[in-house]
Amino acid sequence: MKRSERLVAMTNYLIDHPMELISLPFFSEVYGAAKSSISEDLAIINRIFREDGIGYLASISGAAGGVKYIPHVSETKSTHIIDELCTQLEDPARILPGGYLFMSDVLGNPNTVRNIGRLFASKFADLNIDSIVTVATKGIPLAYAVAEFLNVPVIIVRRDPKVTEGSTVSINYVSGSSKKIQTMVLSKRSLNSGANVCIIDDFMKAGGTINGIKNLLEEFDANVKAIGVLAEAEDEEEERVVDEYVSLVRIKNVDDTKKQIEVVKGNYFQN
Amino acid sequence: MKRSERLVAMTNYLIDHPMELISLPFFSEVYGAAKSSISEDLAIINRIFREDGIGYLASISGAAGGVKYIPHVSETKSTHIIDELCTQLEDPARILPGGYLFMSDVLGNPNTVRNIGRLFASKFADLNIDSIVTVATKGIPLAYAVAEFLNVPVIIVRRDPKVTEGSTVSINYVSGSSKKIQTMVLSKRSLNSGANVCIIDDFMKAGGTINGIKNLLEEFDANVKAIGVLAEAEDEEEERVVDEYVSLVRIKNVDDTKKQIEVVKGNYFQN
Repeated sequence: MKRSERLVAMTNYLIDHPMELISLPFFSEVYGAAKSSISEDLAIINRIFREDGIGYLASISGAAGGVKYIPHVSETKSTHIIDELCTQLEDPARILPGGYLFMSDVLGNPNTVRNIGRLFASKFADLNIDSIVTVATKGIPLAYAVAEFLNVPVIIVRRDPKVTEGSTVSINYVSGSSKKIQTMVLSKRSLNSGANVCIIDDFMKAGGTINGIKNLLEEFDANVKAIGVLAEAEDEEEERVVDEYVSLVRIKNVDDTKKQIEVVKGNYFQN
Repeated sequence: MKRSERLVAMTNYLIDHPMELISLPFFSEVYGAAKSSISEDLAIINRIFREDGIGYLASISGAAGGVKYIPHVSETKSTHIIDELCTQLEDPARILPGGYLFMSDVLGNPNTVRNIGRLFASKFADLNIDSIVTVATKGIPLAYAVAEFLNVPVIIVRRDPKVTEGSTVSINYVSGSSKKIQTMVLSKRSLNSGANVCIIDDFMKAGGTINGIKNLLEEFDANVKAIGVLAEAEDEEEERVVDEYVSLVRIKNVDDTKKQIEVVKGNYFQN
């Protein structure tokens, strides 16, 4: 295979296998090229990935070494993605009765979802995450987008037990806004004890739901290493019960009667 | 930019923008190369995409022309993916009381989900699909995977109306297996009239749920162009109410007491 062809094939392979250690002999063998040529190819790919702002190739030396594609969104690109989200969400047509916000179209766009996944994956790539946890329904696409870039499985907490989950562990918790007692269940076989997890959700107000997930995960002895929410909003009545999290946008001042809404950057760039 | 670098950047761009018409002048400008060089680059990329079994570049000639990456999984690769799914699902440890099957781990693996999405996208790439429709919960990741490759939005039908959906259209339908009356709702702003849609779900027995979605979509004057299900199973008591669909695997003979299960290829290669 010629260098030009190899570069296409290797780019494709690396993008399709993020966070996976690939040995140089593997590439050598598959593409029938000397290790020195493969090294040169990887240097080119690394340079372009960095220039494109989509990540970089980490080299791990030694006998068990190789190369790993680490997704990482450049600051310029992150700012652009988040600014665009703010603009989209500020559309007053999104305001629903009660000051809620219609976001299903934004969450329905696979490109937007993929970009959001890329941002969280960039942030959490160093944390040795074993699984992404989310709660049905709206968090699911975001959780998969993050999982794809971190190359780890997704675990879905449900509000209602289903027969297809097998035996489950369940907890009751009090939702922040409605003060109602709610239930959450997680399939017993879904998570190994001591796993490092990252919680992903679309929206957080006081954080009752995320706190519920945290309590449920304690039953599995999981370590919550990171929490990512697309949008955070202030709850006037309730103090926040979750303090360490990363948000992409913050929704301020939803005025149902004046049809005004302000959406600003979340704390993504602050920590 | 040198050819070697351009090939990496263009491969990356094309993979990230499936089903999108990209003009040659666009590439020329972004990468500072003559149109003739870009054409040669595209020929190389096209050849490698085909060899890798991940799709091809379609050339559209004329003033409004350009190139489009069409995801298409080769038959060898499709067979491999489906065979592996069958093997995974045949594990007797998956059998749950009542003859149900535990599949959450399979659906939780983002690579598996992505491959399933690739397969359906290959099959439906020519149908001018405008939106992917699924029903909460388990169909969601599959729907997004298909949507990503077809570059169209996802619309999620819910079992329960939520305030964040705004005004909704709802229907009642009778579920095949339980004979219970169930409800399905879809946000009014989610779908334009006359849209071409593709329904994606994880599992189909008699097809009551998918039939329910079809009825609901009639309220939006949508054209159901395709139906894709990961797994189909026979229902002993009920005749199937959906006849045109594509399935990847078929679950046969789940024997709860003997802990035996047979999983074979679905009708994917038949139509």
